[in-house]
Amino acid sequence: MINIAVCGATGYTGYEIIKILLRHPKAHIKVLTAKLDKPTKISEEFPELKGKIDLACEELVVNHVLKKKVDLVFLALPHRVSMEYASRFIDKGKIVIDLSADFRIKDVKVYEKYYGQKHIYKDYITRCVYGLPELYKNRIQRTRFVANPGCYPTGSILAVAPLIAKKIAAKDTIILDAKSGATGAGRKAALGLIFGEVAENLMAYKVGVHQHSPEITQELSTLAGKEVDILFTPHLVPIRRGILTTAYVSLNKKADLSSLLRLYRSFYKNAPFVKIYDEGLLPQIHDIVNTNYCGIGLALSLDKKKVIIVSAIDNLLKGASGQAVQNMNLACGFPETMGLE
Amino acid sequence: MINIAVCGATGYTGYEIIKILLRHPKAHIKVLTAKLDKPTKISEEFPELKGKIDLACEELVVNHVLKKKVDLVFLALPHRVSMEYASRFIDKGKIVIDLSADFRIKDVKVYEKYYGQKHIYKDYITRCVYGLPELYKNRIQRTRFVANPGCYPTGSILAVAPLIAKKIAAKDTIILDAKSGATGAGRKAALGLIFGEVAENLMAYKVGVHQHSPEITQELSTLAGKEVDILFTPHLVPIRRGILTTAYVSLNKKADLSSLLRLYRSFYKNAPFVKIYDEGLLPQIHDIVNTNYCGIGLALSLDKKKVIIVSAIDNLLKGASGQAVQNMNLACGFPETMGLE
Amino acid sequence: MINIAVCGATGYTGYEIIKILLRHPKAHIKVLTAKLDKPTKISEEFPELKGKIDLACEELVVNHVLKKKVDLVFLALPHRVSMEYASRFIDKGKIVIDLSADFRIKDVKVYEKYYGQKHIYKDYITRCVYGLPELYKNRIQRTRFVANPGCYPTGSILAVAPLIAKKIAAKDTIILDAKSGATGAGRKAALGLIFGEVAENLMAYKVGVHQHSPEITQELSTLAGKEVDILFTPHLVPIRRGILTTAYVSLNKKADLSSLLRLYRSFYKNAPFVKIYDEGLLPQIHDIVNTNYCGIGLALSLDKKKVIIVSAIDNLLKGASGQAVQNMNLACGFPETMGLE
Amino acid sequence: MINIAVCGATGYTGYEIIKILLRHPKAHIKVLTAKLDKPTKISEEFPELKGKIDLACEELVVNHVLKKKVDLVFLALPHRVSMEYASRFIDKGKIVIDLSADFRIKDVKVYEKYYGQKHIYKDYITRCVYGLPELYKNRIQRTRFVANPGCYPTGSILAVAPLIAKKIAAKDTIILDAKSGATGAGRKAALGLIFGEVAENLMAYKVGVHQHSPEITQELSTLAGKEVDILFTPHLVPIRRGILTTAYVSLNKKADLSSLLRLYRSFYKNAPFVKIYDEGLLPQIHDIVNTNYCGIGLALSLDKKKVIIVSAIDNLLKGASGQAVQNMNLACGFPETMGLE
Repeated sequence: MINIAVCGATGYTGYEIIKILLRHPKAHIKVLTAKLDKPTKISEEFPELKGKIDLACEELVVNHVLKKKVDLVFLALPHRVSMEYASRFIDKGKIVIDLSADFRIKDVKVYEKYYGQKHIYKDYITRCVYGLPELYKNRIQRTRFVANPGCYPTGSILAVAPLIAKKIAAKDTIILDAKSGATGAGRKAALGLIFGEVAENLMAYKVGVHQHSPEITQELSTLAGKEVDILFTPHLVPIRRGILTTAYVSLNKKADLSSLLRLYRSFYKNAPFVKIYDEGLLPQIHDIVNTNYCGIGLALSLDKKKVIIVSAIDNLLKGASGQAVQNMNLACGFPETMGLE
Repeated sequence: MINIAVCGATGYTGYEIIKILLRHPKAHIKVLTAKLDKPTKISEEFPELKGKIDLACEELVVNHVLKKKVDLVFLALPHRVSMEYASRFIDKGKIVIDLSADFRIKDVKVYEKYYGQKHIYKDYITRCVYGLPELYKNRIQRTRFVANPGCYPTGSILAVAPLIAKKIAAKDTIILDAKSGATGAGRKAALGLIFGEVAENLMAYKVGVHQHSPEITQELSTLAGKEVDILFTPHLVPIRRGILTTAYVSLNKKADLSSLLRLYRSFYKNAPFVKIYDEGLLPQIHDIVNTNYCGIGLALSLDKKKVIIVSAIDNLLKGASGQAVQNMNLACGFPETMGLE
Repeated sequence: MINIAVCGATGYTGYEIIKILLRHPKAHIKVLTAKLDKPTKISEEFPELKGKIDLACEELVVNHVLKKKVDLVFLALPHRVSMEYASRFIDKGKIVIDLSADFRIKDVKVYEKYYGQKHIYKDYITRCVYGLPELYKNRIQRTRFVANPGCYPTGSILAVAPLIAKKIAAKDTIILDAKSGATGAGRKAALGLIFGEVAENLMAYKVGVHQHSPEITQELSTLAGKEVDILFTPHLVPIRRGILTTAYVSLNKKADLSSLLRLYRSFYKNAPFVKIYDEGLLPQIHDIVNTNYCGIGLALSLDKKKVIIVSAIDNLLKGASGQAVQNMNLACGFPETMGLE
Repeated sequence: MINIAVCGATGYTGYEIIKILLRHPKAHIKVLTAKLDKPTKISEEFPELKGKIDLACEELVVNHVLKKKVDLVFLALPHRVSMEYASRFIDKGKIVIDLSADFRIKDVKVYEKYYGQKHIYKDYITRCVYGLPELYKNRIQRTRFVANPGCYPTGSILAVAPLIAKKIAAKDTIILDAKSGATGAGRKAALGLIFGEVAENLMAYKVGVHQHSPEITQELSTLAGKEVDILFTPHLVPIRRGILTTAYVSLNKKADLSSLLRLYRSFYKNAPFVKIYDEGLLPQIHDIVNTNYCGIGLALSLDKKKVIIVSAIDNLLKGASGQAVQNMNLACGFPETMGLE
């Protein structure tokens, strides 16, 4: 049994972490923190939790959290805010699962360009493992500091990783056309997120400049052993949760679908949360919503030289909180799927 | 041709007024005002307007507006803000259509209780006509100052007015169960309005204390010539626009549906925007959305002593901006339906 | 461990039963039946189930099911179809949880009027218990044949039962204004259910003639010991799952809210799936969706002589499949909440 | 003034044609046809039309229509059904605007492969003009037979046509990732279209085999003067109307965005319904819904060798009925925008 603090408990990802941990046989939530005008029980903010957990959300003060003898801290804080807290909990020997982007990007200059501010805890970046278990399970099992991947990168990287790792993709630009539900932007008051603006609307946004673009590039390039060129276009669609990513990859040579599917199944044979779809089938959001699964399906162009890959994840689970608990399981030596099925 | 200022042009109701006026053969928009960090063309805020109207939105300064020689001012401003501007434009002899609640409630104490602040322009209240053309067409035709009704009151009052006016309703409480789309709350950043909170959700809110309750009571009581008791319950539903109101009224004695329908048709015979549905049919939001119509349908309880009335309006049109232009038409001597069909 | 058949596995309620049973420690699904052109694995119909249950759905043939030695049968079949199968499984000594309406209505004439066809298994009606555990827990614990309540009746009856049982409601008509998501109509191809017709729409339907009206009347009248007059109006709203019911009840005399809340808490003290909300709070669909809970909140009219009750349920869980498993738990002697939290 | 028959009046596209024609100063609707069990007034099917048009929908019988002395026929019929009626009305000298796909594809073999049936009116194909006014205005002005483009092809072709026509696109595959609302599939009862299946879901479908793929290829290849390779992936998203297409095109050489925008503006300078967005802006569905406009915005990849084009149309207007009336205007010598603004 480990004792846990969830910092940022009233956001969508904090809330989902709490719901998972309540079903987790080895987890005990000791502390919840949130930015609120006054101490508020979490069950007042989310009535569904009433009778299940009645902790009050307190202001995040590191020493207060340490006094509660927690073993592990989930940081579901805004980018840039997370940085300081992560470093301080690490210094005190806590296991930290950081859901922000602050330690995902290895190249500080790239981070500073895309997130628009100085990184003042550079030394911690190298101590941190990028928490995509399908690529880095062994390293996550040995770390105490995980940078939990972004939601878009999770869907995009899982969609194309086998082609990159196996050197089957041509050097052409990889197109990643991603469609995300509105909770991906967080639980915050913003004009662009209100129902009247989002419902019955579709838009592409931050084309070419989205902060998840360098994260995807970094991971795919690492996997390829050379720079991989991607074109990532996020879209906002009127669903609450889910990301569907349609990836377009040119191949080195003609392929057949059954070989590609075999390749994918083999690549993900130790990945309990990846489901490869049979020929002719593609994942939909309904298949994976409210689960930690990533569904992946493939189709070929008529000339068999391009492959279209569709991946589907729940942005709040495999794209955030579910993956965070998956990382906790690995870092703590629990079964990878514990509490997540 | 009249010259017009639309104050509060970037809200949902301001935007709808602009769109109607662009189709209106007698209206010329001279001034748009909005609260923005810098002067912004309205077509930047709403790309649909590009090439149709490219005025910049300016800060609302009464003297600036007066210099532009406008004849009529639409005030699509927040409650409490509208008060001062309405009085000043009235003083300068302008026709004012005020979409706020500031001059709807005759009893200042009631206003102050429900809107939570002092009313400092009491003298203007009596000079203002409640702009529900189906009840007050003659008075609107002779006024220069209209208090445009609330969205919920429009749907509720039109649903039951014939029964009240004709003394057919028993003295029992009238139940008004109203379901509104999210644009009814305005175009503003608020956590409770974001897509993640509104989609796939339903809620009743402000039960017994909604500020539209006294407005409905006032108008129905005036119509009845005595105090009418209502129970008004608003609900938020995940649609962008539309209010469906289900009203439950006890009758003095058994009724038959065809007589009631005749009564309704007769009561609304000079109301070009009210459609009474044939027996067995009830209005839906799809029937009236994007129009200025109010659809009304009736059904009887098995014992024929209670009538269920369903009314449907587009909250932004008949519930706000369409009705405002209808009032403009009446106040300016134009055909009532001009620009609205 | 009991062996189970789910008949009608590819509808929404069948699917939900399967998902619950997969988490239930005492349930083992042996047979799935569905009306399909050819035997199809349930995981082909619902990819989410892949790897968790791969049974094929077969044609419903009573003898085939019996051969599989099932102990209990869930009938998630259309009204009128269920009748025959229920009787045959009962004859063979199986426990039957019937989700159809075929055995809910005690008065055959009423059933035949509202469901439009002869009831040819009248003898079985009296052998069947109405499966609302909050009213009939003891009887359900001793039966082998449960008529699972309708979704609307569950939300409506739970909302007002304490007032009726405790003789606090005046004899006036009880208004039940219910708003349901689209899955309440089942998983079937119908023009009125397609996205283009339901999205951005609201409608009242079957006003005064809905088949759930006599079911509610029967149960409330039984509880009151005399005929209770209700006016039940169902509405279709564009959400996938959930029913919000707003009930309006006149009281015998003035009440205060805290006493009423105490009464509700007392009435439901042994009901693990009913949550009474604190003063000032009302349930929303988001609070209870994907759970078996019914949330109930109360408000009073200004004159304290009418109470407004809002109840919220997930129509597919507490309104159908969750309640069906709750009934299974009671009928089989398992803990009432097993598999449902 | 011309007399018009709308065949298939109760589908979404028929309904939209009627609504446009009611505002069109030169159009008079004489006949409506639909497949209904009994003659039904169109205003019973669509209450919004009540009081505006009360024609009954009749069975489509060519001689009946001819007797009514119509000048022009809109065929909003299913693919394959349209074929015969188009040919017969053409034989009788009527102007035909065919919204089906039956005469869009020049190569009969391709048609038969993608639409799965024999084309038995091949001779008429060459007599028909592909009704995309932005490419074929002159030809449409001189024809009496228009094949109205598909919704997806309209959005896709308009997005990339300038690059193709001006030989700026490299020979690489053009990626067309299109997201469509649910009305694109028509107004018909189908399980895959019901609210419970579409809401909160996203899916790619018919990847590589969609029937609009050869239509896009045909038109872009004609424009290029050589075979153009495309990869078109349609997606279903939970909105009622609208198609957002994100196109990815490799360029022959590095480009700058302002030159590309100039090129687009120049190419579409005579296209009143195409709006090119300023640098940094991209069209959204809200900008164009309920209008006949196609919004187009551009962005460049970091290496300036790929351009991302986003186009937005209302699938029922510019993607179907609005474009059909635009074609009518051209074929009849009316101003192109008449009735459409």
